[in-house]
Parts: sequence; C-alpha cells; structure tokens
Amino acid sequence: MSAPLSLLLEAPDVRAVLSHLGRDRFIDLLTARLTETLRTFAPEQVQIPPRAGVQYANPSFGLLEWMPAYVGAGETLVKVVGYHPTNPEVRGVPTVISTMCLYDATGGHLIGIVDGTLLTALRTGAASAVATRILASPHSRVLGVIGCGAQAVTQIHALSRVLPLERIVAYDVRPDAARSLAARVSFVGVPVEVVGPEKLGDLVAGADVLCTCTSSAPGAGPVFPDGPTRPHLHVNAIGSDLPGKFEVPVELLRRGLVCPDFREQAVLEGECQQLTAEDIGPDLAALVQQGHTFEAARERITVFDSTGWALEDYVATRMMLECARELGRGRRVAVECLPPDPKDPYSLLESAESAAGSYLSAGRVRV
Amino acid sequence: MSAPLSLLLEAPDVRAVLSHLGRDRFIDLLTARLTETLRTFAPEQVQIPPRAGVQYANPSFGLLEWMPAYVGAGETLVKVVGYHPTNPEVRGVPTVISTMCLYDATGGHLIGIVDGTLLTALRTGAASAVATRILASPHSRVLGVIGCGAQAVTQIHALSRVLPLERIVAYDVRPDAARSLAARVSFVGVPVEVVGPEKLGDLVAGADVLCTCTSSAPGAGPVFPDGPTRPHLHVNAIGSDLPGKFEVPVELLRRGLVCPDFREQAVLEGECQQLTAEDIGPDLAALVQQGHTFEAARERITVFDSTGWALEDYVATRMMLECARELGRGRRVAVECLPPDPKDPYSLLESAESAAGSYLSAGRVRV
Repeated sequence: MSAPLSLLLEAPDVRAVLSHLGRDRFIDLLTARLTETLRTFAPEQVQIPPRAGVQYANPSFGLLEWMPAYVGAGETLVKVVGYHPTNPEVRGVPTVISTMCLYDATGGHLIGIVDGTLLTALRTGAASAVATRILASPHSRVLGVIGCGAQAVTQIHALSRVLPLERIVAYDVRPDAARSLAARVSFVGVPVEVVGPEKLGDLVAGADVLCTCTSSAPGAGPVFPDGPTRPHLHVNAIGSDLPGKFEVPVELLRRGLVCPDFREQAVLEGECQQLTAEDIGPDLAALVQQGHTFEAARERITVFDSTGWALEDYVATRMMLECARELGRGRRVAVECLPPDPKDPYSLLESAESAAGSYLSAGRVRV
Repeated sequence: MSAPLSLLLEAPDVRAVLSHLGRDRFIDLLTARLTETLRTFAPEQVQIPPRAGVQYANPSFGLLEWMPAYVGAGETLVKVVGYHPTNPEVRGVPTVISTMCLYDATGGHLIGIVDGTLLTALRTGAASAVATRILASPHSRVLGVIGCGAQAVTQIHALSRVLPLERIVAYDVRPDAARSLAARVSFVGVPVEVVGPEKLGDLVAGADVLCTCTSSAPGAGPVFPDGPTRPHLHVNAIGSDLPGKFEVPVELLRRGLVCPDFREQAVLEGECQQLTAEDIGPDLAALVQQGHTFEAARERITVFDSTGWALEDYVATRMMLECARELGRGRRVAVECLPPDPKDPYSLLESAESAAGSYLSAGRVRV
C-alpha cells in the first residue's frame, strides 16, 4: 500500500518554475490559460461562493478570507488569503499573503499545496490582461497607475504583454512606494514618470488605460476625483476587496461599461457596490465568450471591476503545480493521516503504512 | 534575512506524537485542554462562523467544507474537511479526510499545517467526553453505539476515560462494520456485543449512555425509533453535519435537555434543526462554565448535539503542533513566496533569500 501523497511546492520550487519559463512566458501562458478556461466556463458546472472571512484589529486592521472553488473538473481549490496592510512597513512582508490547497472532489484528498502570494499577484495581472485585450483600445500607449505596491508590478507586467505601452504615469499616497516603482518594473522597458497629488487629475486625463491598485480603507471613497478622461479610457480597478472599499468615482462608472470579474462578489466588495443591477455590464466570462459583440466598447469608457475570483486562483494553481511537476520540482508529503483501516483512526499507530493505495487507483487523482 | 517558515507535520510525525504520549494520555490531555479552553471561552473575543461548503455528486455524493476560527489569541485556524461516505468502500480511506492550517492573525503568516483526519476523530471524542462528564450519570456502565465507523472508535475511547463502562452494545446498518468494531476498540478493555436491527430498541432501552455516529443521509430521519429509555439516558449525537441530517427522534429530544456544541451551527445542521429556540438548552461552553448548575440534569435525559466545532479543531491542532515541536518532529517548510522586497513579487527571482526575517521579530509567531 502506498500513501496518497500531496505535492508541496516551496518557494525555491516556485522560483525554479518562474526562472525556467521566464516571467514573460509565465504570464503569457497564464493569460492564455485563463482565457481558455473562461471561454468554456459554464456557471452551472461550478460552485464558487463569494469569499468570506474574519476581520480583526490585532493589533492593526487585518483580515483572513477563504476563497473556495469547486470547478466541476473533479477538483476543489480552497485559497486562504490574508490582507494585512501594515505588513510591508511593520513586518517586511507583502500585504497579501496566501496559500492554495487543491483537493480531489471525488474523495477529498489534498492534491497539492502551493503559495498563493505570488500566484495572486500573477493571476490578478493575467485577469486584467484578459479584460484589457477585449475592452481597451489596442493602440493604448499611456498607462496610469494609482497605487504602486506589489500588485502594480504584475499589473504593469501583464498589461505590457497585451498593449504597446510607451509611458507609465504613477502615483501613490506614499511617495517612497511611487519612487521605487520604476526600478521594480524596469524589466518591462517602459519609462515610469512619478507624479504628486497635484497631478492626479492630469494622470487620469492623459491615460489610455488606468490601473487602480491601492490599499485604500473601506469608507474612504474613490482614490481619484472625477474629471475629464480620454473617450476610450479603460480602467482596471483591482483594489476593491472589502465591503465599503472602492476606488473609482461613481460618476465615471456611470459613464462607462462596467464589467465585473464575478458579479456576485463584485456587488458585495467591488466597484459594483456603487451601482444598481441594471448598470452592471457583462462579466469576464461573458466578455471572453462574446468578445466580438463588445468591440465597440473599445471606443468608450470601460471599467474592469476586478475583485479577485477563485476561478483565476484555480487556473494559476493548476498551472503552477503542472509546471513544477514537469520540472521535477516539489516534495511529495504525507500530510493526511490515512490509516490502513479507514474505520480505525488508531490503526495509524500499528503500521508504518499510513494509507491506502486503492485510493489512487480508484480515483483519478492527478499531479 | 531568514524566511518565516511553516511547521508541516506528516503522518509519521503525528504517529510519533501519539506513540510517545500514548493514546490514553493524548485523549486525556485533549479533553482537559478543551475543558480549560471552554472555561475561559468568551464569544465576544472570537469569530467562528458556521461552516460552509460545496456539495456535489462526483461521481457519488460528497462535500468539502471550510471551518474557520479566529480565536482571539492572535491566531486563526482554517480547517478544510471532506465528507465522502463512499470512501471506505470505494477508496479504502476514511469518510472524513481533513487538513488544518493555522495562521498568525497579526500578519497572515501560515504557522502550521497538520492532518485533520485523526484530529477530527480525536477532538470529537474529547468533546463528547467533556459533555458526558457534565451531563451523564457518573455511574453509567452500558454504552450503546449506533454507527460503527471511524468516529465510533474515538467516541468509545474518550467515553471510556470518563465513565466506568462495563459493556458496549453496538449496531450498524452494515453488519461488517459492526462485526469489526470489537477488534478496533479492544484496547479499551470493555466487551462489545453486536446486535441486529431487531434489537435496536433494546440497545437504546438498556443504555446509560448512547452514541449515534452514522453516515445516515439527509432526509432519512432518525437512526432509531423513539421508545423507552433509562430515565438518566445521556446521548452524544455526533453524526449530524448537514442540513436535513439528524439521528435522534424529536420526541426524545423534547423529553430531554439538548445541549449543542455551537448553537449557530447546530440549528443549521444538528439535532437542534428539529427544535425551536426555546427548546434548546445551554451550549457546551455554558455547561463547562456553569457545570454545577446542571448537576440535576444527570438524573434526566440529556442530549449533546455535537456538530463539530472549529474551536475544538483549534485546540486539537495547537496541542498536536506543540507536542510535535517538543518531540522535535515536523519539517519547517517555506510554502509562502515572500519576496525580499514586499512591494515586488518578482524580487523572489533575484535572490535565494525568499522572505523577511523582520516578520518573526515584529510578530509573536509561535510554533
């Protein structure tokens, strides 16, 4: 009898995958894979409840959320994601830290464990790339960025792969975060100009595409004032992830076509909180599946309301696990205490054989 | 800079802890620790939402649930638990398979990963021991068991530690499960008599304490008919874990004092589904905190409605992690991809140093 083990990826494994493929190829593959998943997405085959979580002040504001996705392919992903805005300054670690656990949905076996911190940043970038390719003018050259933290890096990277960017104009309420952005995205080869709060209106007015990715607090209101924009402005609003938190002025939303990643969640936590149901446009899957019908939208204002969707996490997790397996990376671990006799928990004690090999032959547990 | 690692326990580590302490001492310590946690439990300091999950038929009925508990001590547990009743027969693994992930609630770091399969069976036993010590006659000698799967083993074990048991009478709809029970619980030294369906009424009528731990289907109704019982019968009803699923006849519940582990969840998934609010007695924490006021209840019918509470999982997980650490067991793993620059996900690629040591000094991350 051999144990049904789980594949554990550690940071060096993830680093090896990214180094091997290169970050450009990785984000391109992820964007393509997400597009393909959305093209065949059928809501009746999946169960993806809006995320839920606990909030606390311990000692400062933080929250931990669980984002499950039964994707209908015999697998369920449970992402657990922490959001602790004081992390970078106080603890030297990212605001968003996360882990992904992938479960077999025939018997409940844990298939794999992998970091979700990097994957969250990558899949959020890839989702914006998918939406941008459909909704933005393909000639977009100027990218405005409001919020220059970790998510800005992967947003800029992913957008640079689908748009002929020539200039990035960036703003952050923390001047040091804005100042360091250019070095962090130097690899994309697009110059970054940092502006202060007095130029925020100009940043928005001059952008072909705008990305908001802030840690603004719930109740603080939009992160820029309404004002003139290019007629074809496309906004990727990715910072909204809490009830009461949003980034885009409602007047701008009302002038545009607002497309949520996941409507049920966006009306709770996204820009869509500010809208009534009839003001909300097609979701990301509809955009991909009926892309040609939205071509005219490239000439008008559009907003991708990206709250972060567990389906995106599933696609990213599966891809990372498969890439790691192909490279021979990762460790097979026996997390589950599966006793030789499934009706006797203590039979675990009687044998060094800790689990039943019949599981692997009965189910179709991949990775 | 050193990485904030997570402690991963594998099956051999758990086996080592249990072998080192012995199963008697482990369940005794867990029962004591759970009692102590309940004694100081203050609902306003914790956030434990009722569990939620996804259900599917893939190919047969199964579900995966997440059970979070922010316990107010700077930690949050997220248990993920699968319930796949065909597992023992089809896959040779337990019906209930589970993993526990413990998170630091100051910054979101994953502190530890440990199996929840064995711990679920153990903490469910310990919870019944806590309730039984308060609600059952201390002279209870005959234990009736309906449902002879994995949970029966740890129920019998835990109850044998708090009651002077002399006889166990067991029934299962699957005769083979009933037949093998005696061997599985031989270590408790109490003889087991197996009865068929025609003796189910006698089993109930003769029991001082009754334990129901079945995989009966939602909507199937109680697992035994109402009938005569001893006046002091105490029931541990532990099988209810789904809307529509319950095990105990409502008439019996109405004659007794029904005490849920976790009221908000028990009204959704437990025996309490069958009752109105005014028919529901004190919960487990109230029993422990005001135990002396319930002494008279030992002379009457009492029911512990055990749906399985994430607080119990937290106590069991913490105890297992601490015991493993003391024994020097477990592996420190770098699951999280924490880049040297928290604002640059890709800085992970530039350095073999994958995370920030300041986290450990800033937070109080134990284990």
